[in-house]
Amino acid sequence: MNWLHSLDWGAIALNGLTLVGKLLIAFIAFYIARAIGRRIIAQSFLKMKNTKNISSGRSHTLEKLATNVLSYVLIFILVTFIAEMFGLSPSALIAGAGVVGLAIGFGAQGLVSDVVTGFFLLLEKQIDVGDYVTVAALDGIVEEVGLRTTQIRGFDGTLYFIPNRNITDVHNHSRGNMRALVDVSIPFEDNMDETIKLIQDACADLGDVTELIKEGPDVVGVEDLSSSLVTIRVIAKTENMHQWTVERQIRKVIKQAMDEHKQSIEEETPGDEEN
Amino acid sequence: MNWLHSLDWGAIALNGLTLVGKLLIAFIAFYIARAIGRRIIAQSFLKMKNTKNISSGRSHTLEKLATNVLSYVLIFILVTFIAEMFGLSPSALIAGAGVVGLAIGFGAQGLVSDVVTGFFLLLEKQIDVGDYVTVAALDGIVEEVGLRTTQIRGFDGTLYFIPNRNITDVHNHSRGNMRALVDVSIPFEDNMDETIKLIQDACADLGDVTELIKEGPDVVGVEDLSSSLVTIRVIAKTENMHQWTVERQIRKVIKQAMDEHKQSIEEETPGDEEN
Amino acid sequence: MNWLHSLDWGAIALNGLTLVGKLLIAFIAFYIARAIGRRIIAQSFLKMKNTKNISSGRSHTLEKLATNVLSYVLIFILVTFIAEMFGLSPSALIAGAGVVGLAIGFGAQGLVSDVVTGFFLLLEKQIDVGDYVTVAALDGIVEEVGLRTTQIRGFDGTLYFIPNRNITDVHNHSRGNMRALVDVSIPFEDNMDETIKLIQDACADLGDVTELIKEGPDVVGVEDLSSSLVTIRVIAKTENMHQWTVERQIRKVIKQAMDEHKQSIEEETPGDEEN
Amino acid sequence: MNWLHSLDWGAIALNGLTLVGKLLIAFIAFYIARAIGRRIIAQSFLKMKNTKNISSGRSHTLEKLATNVLSYVLIFILVTFIAEMFGLSPSALIAGAGVVGLAIGFGAQGLVSDVVTGFFLLLEKQIDVGDYVTVAALDGIVEEVGLRTTQIRGFDGTLYFIPNRNITDVHNHSRGNMRALVDVSIPFEDNMDETIKLIQDACADLGDVTELIKEGPDVVGVEDLSSSLVTIRVIAKTENMHQWTVERQIRKVIKQAMDEHKQSIEEETPGDEEN
Amino acid sequence: MNWLHSLDWGAIALNGLTLVGKLLIAFIAFYIARAIGRRIIAQSFLKMKNTKNISSGRSHTLEKLATNVLSYVLIFILVTFIAEMFGLSPSALIAGAGVVGLAIGFGAQGLVSDVVTGFFLLLEKQIDVGDYVTVAALDGIVEEVGLRTTQIRGFDGTLYFIPNRNITDVHNHSRGNMRALVDVSIPFEDNMDETIKLIQDACADLGDVTELIKEGPDVVGVEDLSSSLVTIRVIAKTENMHQWTVERQIRKVIKQAMDEHKQSIEEETPGDEEN
Amino acid sequence: MNWLHSLDWGAIALNGLTLVGKLLIAFIAFYIARAIGRRIIAQSFLKMKNTKNISSGRSHTLEKLATNVLSYVLIFILVTFIAEMFGLSPSALIAGAGVVGLAIGFGAQGLVSDVVTGFFLLLEKQIDVGDYVTVAALDGIVEEVGLRTTQIRGFDGTLYFIPNRNITDVHNHSRGNMRALVDVSIPFEDNMDETIKLIQDACADLGDVTELIKEGPDVVGVEDLSSSLVTIRVIAKTENMHQWTVERQIRKVIKQAMDEHKQSIEEETPGDEEN
Amino acid sequence: MNWLHSLDWGAIALNGLTLVGKLLIAFIAFYIARAIGRRIIAQSFLKMKNTKNISSGRSHTLEKLATNVLSYVLIFILVTFIAEMFGLSPSALIAGAGVVGLAIGFGAQGLVSDVVTGFFLLLEKQIDVGDYVTVAALDGIVEEVGLRTTQIRGFDGTLYFIPNRNITDVHNHSRGNMRALVDVSIPFEDNMDETIKLIQDACADLGDVTELIKEGPDVVGVEDLSSSLVTIRVIAKTENMHQWTVERQIRKVIKQAMDEHKQSIEEETPGDEEN
Repeated sequence: MNWLHSLDWGAIALNGLTLVGKLLIAFIAFYIARAIGRRIIAQSFLKMKNTKNISSGRSHTLEKLATNVLSYVLIFILVTFIAEMFGLSPSALIAGAGVVGLAIGFGAQGLVSDVVTGFFLLLEKQIDVGDYVTVAALDGIVEEVGLRTTQIRGFDGTLYFIPNRNITDVHNHSRGNMRALVDVSIPFEDNMDETIKLIQDACADLGDVTELIKEGPDVVGVEDLSSSLVTIRVIAKTENMHQWTVERQIRKVIKQAMDEHKQSIEEETPGDEEN
Repeated sequence: MNWLHSLDWGAIALNGLTLVGKLLIAFIAFYIARAIGRRIIAQSFLKMKNTKNISSGRSHTLEKLATNVLSYVLIFILVTFIAEMFGLSPSALIAGAGVVGLAIGFGAQGLVSDVVTGFFLLLEKQIDVGDYVTVAALDGIVEEVGLRTTQIRGFDGTLYFIPNRNITDVHNHSRGNMRALVDVSIPFEDNMDETIKLIQDACADLGDVTELIKEGPDVVGVEDLSSSLVTIRVIAKTENMHQWTVERQIRKVIKQAMDEHKQSIEEETPGDEEN
Repeated sequence: MNWLHSLDWGAIALNGLTLVGKLLIAFIAFYIARAIGRRIIAQSFLKMKNTKNISSGRSHTLEKLATNVLSYVLIFILVTFIAEMFGLSPSALIAGAGVVGLAIGFGAQGLVSDVVTGFFLLLEKQIDVGDYVTVAALDGIVEEVGLRTTQIRGFDGTLYFIPNRNITDVHNHSRGNMRALVDVSIPFEDNMDETIKLIQDACADLGDVTELIKEGPDVVGVEDLSSSLVTIRVIAKTENMHQWTVERQIRKVIKQAMDEHKQSIEEETPGDEEN
Repeated sequence: MNWLHSLDWGAIALNGLTLVGKLLIAFIAFYIARAIGRRIIAQSFLKMKNTKNISSGRSHTLEKLATNVLSYVLIFILVTFIAEMFGLSPSALIAGAGVVGLAIGFGAQGLVSDVVTGFFLLLEKQIDVGDYVTVAALDGIVEEVGLRTTQIRGFDGTLYFIPNRNITDVHNHSRGNMRALVDVSIPFEDNMDETIKLIQDACADLGDVTELIKEGPDVVGVEDLSSSLVTIRVIAKTENMHQWTVERQIRKVIKQAMDEHKQSIEEETPGDEEN
Repeated sequence: MNWLHSLDWGAIALNGLTLVGKLLIAFIAFYIARAIGRRIIAQSFLKMKNTKNISSGRSHTLEKLATNVLSYVLIFILVTFIAEMFGLSPSALIAGAGVVGLAIGFGAQGLVSDVVTGFFLLLEKQIDVGDYVTVAALDGIVEEVGLRTTQIRGFDGTLYFIPNRNITDVHNHSRGNMRALVDVSIPFEDNMDETIKLIQDACADLGDVTELIKEGPDVVGVEDLSSSLVTIRVIAKTENMHQWTVERQIRKVIKQAMDEHKQSIEEETPGDEEN
Repeated sequence: MNWLHSLDWGAIALNGLTLVGKLLIAFIAFYIARAIGRRIIAQSFLKMKNTKNISSGRSHTLEKLATNVLSYVLIFILVTFIAEMFGLSPSALIAGAGVVGLAIGFGAQGLVSDVVTGFFLLLEKQIDVGDYVTVAALDGIVEEVGLRTTQIRGFDGTLYFIPNRNITDVHNHSRGNMRALVDVSIPFEDNMDETIKLIQDACADLGDVTELIKEGPDVVGVEDLSSSLVTIRVIAKTENMHQWTVERQIRKVIKQAMDEHKQSIEEETPGDEEN
Repeated sequence: MNWLHSLDWGAIALNGLTLVGKLLIAFIAFYIARAIGRRIIAQSFLKMKNTKNISSGRSHTLEKLATNVLSYVLIFILVTFIAEMFGLSPSALIAGAGVVGLAIGFGAQGLVSDVVTGFFLLLEKQIDVGDYVTVAALDGIVEEVGLRTTQIRGFDGTLYFIPNRNITDVHNHSRGNMRALVDVSIPFEDNMDETIKLIQDACADLGDVTELIKEGPDVVGVEDLSSSLVTIRVIAKTENMHQWTVERQIRKVIKQAMDEHKQSIEEETPGDEEN
């Protein structure tokens, strides 16, 4: 048992104290780094909120995400340092993290991709709650934009949950005036100038919906010329989300005008029906 | 054999004791880390259960998964440490783990992807057992949501097993009221105002199904105007899962109204059949 | 040759003995690890067999796979240790394994993916031999479920070999009752209430197949309303695999009922053919 | 030049001898490892050949492949060891191998994938020379199954070279009896019971092809019921590769029976042509 | 406490001073490297702006991106150096960066891909604000070209947000004159030389739109010859964005010419209507 | 300046000489390795040329490629060794090579894939210059097979440049006899036995093209039986590349036979036209 | 302050001088390597220009690219060496480069792929400015071939910017003579020999376009034989880019010949119109 005496207790104590000191320094560095990181994040979000006019809820979600990522990375570095201080090679830790990271890299890339896309969906203003949009070949009213999924309510009442990574080309139908477009097919035999005038006149009075129209409606001309049909196109600029009402009204007045016109012709030439 | 005497038995004993001590510390650290990890997992799930209103079964499945992943990672780190203590380079272990990990990374990414997606399907409430949903171009009633696969019972009785990674865009038809939509094509010659009134009147009395309707039915107008047909659209908001019943009833009453109308015309002008 | 005498034969002997000792320890550790691993695998499969009701053949295949993977990984680790003991850097071995592993990772990921999916196909009960299933857009009766491929016999007698990785969305048509669904198109001019009653009456007596029916058949209503045809839908719940027989019988009785009805009308109004 | 004398020639000689000794050991280990590897490969193929009934040519091709892979891996390890012995760091060699390996991993994964799939195509018996198969949307008679490509002769005489990686879902039409399937469309007006009986009777006598039929032909019933046509399905189980002959014969006899039936009706009611 | 005295304070002070010196050098090197990097970036953008005629806004955006990337890389290197100076192994830092980098590499490759493509979209002049383009199967007027997304206003008023990575094949319809193309189908019976002359004459006078035409319109000949129709093609080169106006006018004049021609024939042969 | 005297010039000289010696050995080893490698490549290609009957041009192209790859790998290893000898860590070199290699691995995998596939296209005889083939959904006559691209001349004169990686399923239409296949649709009313006999007789005499036919033409029977048409199939085995001529001739003689047959019927029953 | 005296200024000076010397050697080696590399590049391009007949502009672009890549790699190696000389571990630098490289590898692989493909598009002569080509399903005249994108002018005037990575299968319509192909559908009732002769005669005189024809036009025979139409194919070899003119002229003369033929028949049998 005399080897116990041969130990250099002074050196052991010194090592112990050094270790404790290093631990303290590591923890202090960790808290300082986290505090600085958080402040930088908070300030850049505050600045962004002011300059880019982001809603408070959105900037809060994004700030929380950034703070969490910072914390996880700092904790991982701290743990690795502590393991090293106790003389344990960090390679085991790193290898463990590597296997998990690799599995995440391959298996959960969808998840990471969702969050990255979601981050920009919240930061930029591509879609807002209440917008009428088409994304991933689904269209409806946006109900919620989250970090991982976006919820859209379809016309038939279905609620779509779309992972953000599937939201690539966004068609936002709620940004500015829309265009109503109606194509009318008339038989080839009809006189074209007359028909165009008839349609233009009919579109002059659209009743209640007139106030929804910003521009037009205008008959732009012959869109298609098949051997039996001539297609005439009518276009109007309307207020957002009222383009369908306008289109339906235009179709209705054109139909009525054509009915009346036909009747008047038939009355003029009663013996020449169904030509 | 005198080299046996030259060995420094004191140093050997010291090394042995140090090794045992280190082993003890490693095991204790392992159990402490596991205990802390488990408690953190348990508490965060408890908190989540309360705030996000997750069912007990779901949170149990998720907690078990998180605990298992924690255990596997800690065991791997422990084994690597022990190998190092016995003077065995951990590189062989890590290389072995790396080859397995790489194979998993490439070959089993589908599996990892299933579990990651399944985790969020259970955590969030995108689909519940009993919901009528469309996922991966298959629709039916959800029978089970698991970590790896989700089971959906199709309308014809088929049971679909869908790996969770294939569940991206979820169409959930059981969240809120639905819309019934009926398009009626009428010949171009018919008077439109009359026809729209006829359809609107017919929809006023839908018999038994009236109580399933939340709003409407309303004739929204002329949806399409081809050279021979005019399409009129009728829309109604209905209770969930009863939209088809309502649609069928609307189609039936419109058909009957049009039959009656036709008969009344024919009775008035008996000599003008089949116009 | 006097340098031969200068060698420290004691140290060489000691080294040799140490080497032999290390080798022994390595082999013993290898066998212990393999034995423990095998027992753990065996016990977990035994437990799984009892709780999840897996057939003996299936659990045997899976146990063998798990044991093989364990052995290969342990042998690789053992060889690396031995190489290190002889003073040979294990980097060459690991590099060799890495090149092979990388090639496997890229080129044979299909194979690994097959086995991983096959493992779960055997473990879970998504498909059983004898089930009528649709997988990878092919449908037929399952003849064999293997680790790498699944064999399905198509209706025309073709034997499909499907790599398990292609088996994602499984449509299993042999789990529970099925639904028979028949759509009947009738001319627009027919009276609808009468026709629906006629079809409902016809379906009341289906002869021999009645015992195959669990529920219905019920006429659910007007499914589609085109300008010239009205589509009526009939639905019935049937015993598994007899839905086609029921559908054919329903079609037959409806056809006969409509023929009889027509005849009776024609007999009543003999002078009004071909309306 | 006096530094030449200061060299320790004894140590140099010892080093030289040690080097030669190590080289010898490395080469001996290489040859032993290769011999053992080859024997293991040879024996496992011999065993496989006996138990799985693989043709001699196939097992020879596979054995050669396995032996080559073994040799390349062992040679690479040997070269790395030798480089290390001469004091040259193996990192350059490994880096060179790594760059080549990475390029192969990305660029030639198709090749590796071909060989891995080819290995299993030869080992298992999914396709044999002479089988009539559908793979990669091409169908024909298999002419050759190789490690990298499979050759299939199409019906029009074209020779398809299909890389084995494209062979995933194999449709093998040469495993067991096939089914002949004929759908006959008859006008809606025809009496159905009579028509079914007519078809069933016609199928009773198929002339020469009767001996190719294993079961049936049976009229299974009304497959489709459109507003103008009724589709009747006939099914028969036939000998492999003769299903088309049987189908053509069934079509022919049904056509003739319907012609005769029509004639007999027309003879009975000569004044009612072309109804 | 006498071990305190045994410390070599001189060496400690020297070490401290050396550390401070090294830190100073590191920071100075960092600032110099950043300054040099920024100047190089600024000068190369200035040069590019002059030679490639890039707008000031665009080059500013790109310069800011390049400066940011430079700063992040330099900061990462600086932090790693400082960690090393304090005796902390940089492996933990690098591992942390590696895990984040790997996650980014897999999950956020879309983001990086967006920015890289956006960089070249801004640098090169493939699309400018105001251009009429087709990208990713969407067409409209470019409203904004950003680093991550490009905004395009569709014809119906929808605003498309397209991630730059989806912008591969750019169809720019605003670079140079466009071609108007009209296909006219005439009945097979008409005399072809006459008809071609008729169309050519009609196109000679297009009224107001003549000034929009750069070349033509020319009848290029018989484009298709089906059994009942002959298709004649007319082509004209027009000013950018006016091709549709020209096409509509060409269709209109051809229709009118054909009407007049028909009338003149009918007047000549009044008794041969509707042949 | 007295530290200049303190240098051990003897050791420096020794080091210098050793360095020169090592350099010499490295270069000699490099040249020997290259010479051996080239000889092995040359001999294996010579052997392959003799046993596999490869043309001289092809084997020359492949040999050059193999020699180049060998040289690049050896030069890279040599440079790394030399850098190490001068005390420069090879890590920088390897890192540089790694970055380039990684970029190549991701960006240029198409190129590597082209060369690997091209290697096997040249080695095996899947396509030869002059063959009529279908690859990558393009068909034409092969004009050139290169390491990176294959040139095919399409029927309309277009020259296709196809990167070899796109050449997966090769359809080679120039390997063996081809089959001519003609489907004839006849009205349902025609007597089938008569018609088949008529077609068979017509095919007996094909004029000049008879010598291009190896087998047949044979009427194989009723291929399809719709409600208004019966499809009869005729098959013949022809010389390569003459299948279209034979098909056209068969169609012509069948058409003429049916015309004559019709005429003869009409002559017999002159009062029953156009039934 | 006496530790200042204790420093070995001689050694410090020696170290400093050595460092300066090493730096000098590193820079000199860098410039020599760059000069040699540039000369090798310049000479190989000169040789290539002469032997492969590449235009001066193309070879200049490629040479610049090769020189830039060389410079970047050499600068990276130089910086790493210098960092090492100052006792700074190069691992931080390499890690920084690795993170950037990885991000490039994943995010910018499209860019690298563009440049690699562009390199070969410039080097080989697959497409030249002025060629009429089809690439990436777009066709037009090539306006510019760049390292990153290729510009093609479509027929309607649109300018396509195609990233080079999308240019895989190149259809070059400007290499050699083209074939004009016209299919004529005639009614089944027409006599075929007469019709073929009529078409062949009509094609004998094509007026002005005759000089554009290299071979033909030839009537190759009956291409399709439906129950109501017979399709006759006419083929001619024409000068490049004039195939459409020839096709239109062939269609025109056939149409005229058939009109004349019809008229002559009608004149012969005036009482049998419209059969």
